[in-house]
Amino acid sequence: MAVAGLGLMGGSLALALRPHCRALLGIDTDGATLALAHERGLPDISGSLRAALGYDLLVLATPVRTILAQLGELAQLSPPRRLVVLDLGSTKAEITRAMRALPAGYDPIGGHPMCGKEVSGLAHADAGLFQDKVFVLTPLERTSPGAAALARAVVLAAGARPWLLLPEQHDALAALSSHLPYLAAALLVRAAEAGGDERVWTMAASGFRDTSRLAASDVTMMLDILLTNRAAVLTALAGYHAELQHLTACLEAGDETGLRALLEAARARRQGLFT
Amino acid sequence: MAVAGLGLMGGSLALALRPHCRALLGIDTDGATLALAHERGLPDISGSLRAALGYDLLVLATPVRTILAQLGELAQLSPPRRLVVLDLGSTKAEITRAMRALPAGYDPIGGHPMCGKEVSGLAHADAGLFQDKVFVLTPLERTSPGAAALARAVVLAAGARPWLLLPEQHDALAALSSHLPYLAAALLVRAAEAGGDERVWTMAASGFRDTSRLAASDVTMMLDILLTNRAAVLTALAGYHAELQHLTACLEAGDETGLRALLEAARARRQGLFT
Repeated sequence: MAVAGLGLMGGSLALALRPHCRALLGIDTDGATLALAHERGLPDISGSLRAALGYDLLVLATPVRTILAQLGELAQLSPPRRLVVLDLGSTKAEITRAMRALPAGYDPIGGHPMCGKEVSGLAHADAGLFQDKVFVLTPLERTSPGAAALARAVVLAAGARPWLLLPEQHDALAALSSHLPYLAAALLVRAAEAGGDERVWTMAASGFRDTSRLAASDVTMMLDILLTNRAAVLTALAGYHAELQHLTACLEAGDETGLRALLEAARARRQGLFT
Repeated sequence: MAVAGLGLMGGSLALALRPHCRALLGIDTDGATLALAHERGLPDISGSLRAALGYDLLVLATPVRTILAQLGELAQLSPPRRLVVLDLGSTKAEITRAMRALPAGYDPIGGHPMCGKEVSGLAHADAGLFQDKVFVLTPLERTSPGAAALARAVVLAAGARPWLLLPEQHDALAALSSHLPYLAAALLVRAAEAGGDERVWTMAASGFRDTSRLAASDVTMMLDILLTNRAAVLTALAGYHAELQHLTACLEAGDETGLRALLEAARARRQGLFT
């Protein structure tokens, strides 16, 4: 297996899969990351995607638009033997579209593990990151049964739970479950800042801390996500906006019954989750 | 000391202050809570606010609108000796206004510990709840130096950090740092629900979990807060709405530079908090 992009996700997957691989190659363009990879027990390293040719499986674990560029780069190369390509990108429609255009020597399948941290980089990588997490797989029509089985084996070896979805389904669901929470967190920090009173940060307690946690996410990674999933994210934002307007109207009118109904519904749903 | 309202906050304060009190009376209208109070080591209990007369300090630890009703009840009674009244209500302007109308036998001061959990009730009470947390005090013009010193001693004995604010300052800051995060969390759950696809809950991972945590808060308590701090909460919601519109416009236009600027600003601020 070769893993391109030794950040939090790629590094964690490499650490998790190391006991299961005959050979494991770490690929990154950053010299300091490659040095750290060596320290963290990944001795085979390369700065070039081309080094993955000859392996059974290439995992692309870079930000979404880098994955798109790497798929373009792979399209110019001819693997000496069939190369399964699995990506870990946070949006799937654009990536699987680019995968469809790969030459016949590749056997591509999309993937997205539903986990993360607000920190990034190999220093925070953790072999247990995927444990019991949902790991979405989006096979293409051209994906062979062997590639699908290999991807599934990777998911299971990492301790995660495979879940098959269409790329467009994934992107709509991820917009609501992942991209919208990030934006809500960032908006919260911005609104508190816009209040113009520094004492708000002294007042902020655990509620603010948790609700705003995602605002500390890596912006480049999030921009890749937002800009490659723009339509679905805009739909999610429109739904959020409608809820905000409804709530604001209830509060303006002092409509306690209406407010209670909408807040109780949210409470009941949230209490049933993550139990 | 007497504590009226043996929920999460009142129960936790009673447990934290017990070693510091000559006598400690727990007051609650709920029989099961009084029975549990007995089990949790608070032997002196009563169902009536009137039982607090004769104590040095009465802490009102009920939801905001119950505190307002209790202040009306106290106004009809004559304490046999000076009674300091400290409340723990989440909004301060309406409560301190009602405190101003108390008869001369009372010595009132407002308070608000900046901590909480998404669970409620005496069963979750914890003597360590206030440890190292900010505890706002809002003295009135009529508050005696002795009452202010006693309130400060309570805060310190609970392990918290006293912070003096005007009631209106508190309410504006709390709207942004506490009430807005709750509403953002509830709106997130509602928007995900409104998407109409149950699979969104399978997809929801730690990011959704943390961002939506506050949506599980007690609704009656939150309605009390929202409806007694309506103007400040509406101002906070308007600021949030403006940020949402700005972000949506940037994403619609594909304005990566604008998006990056606003998301990087949120990230920089959030990373500097809770360190």
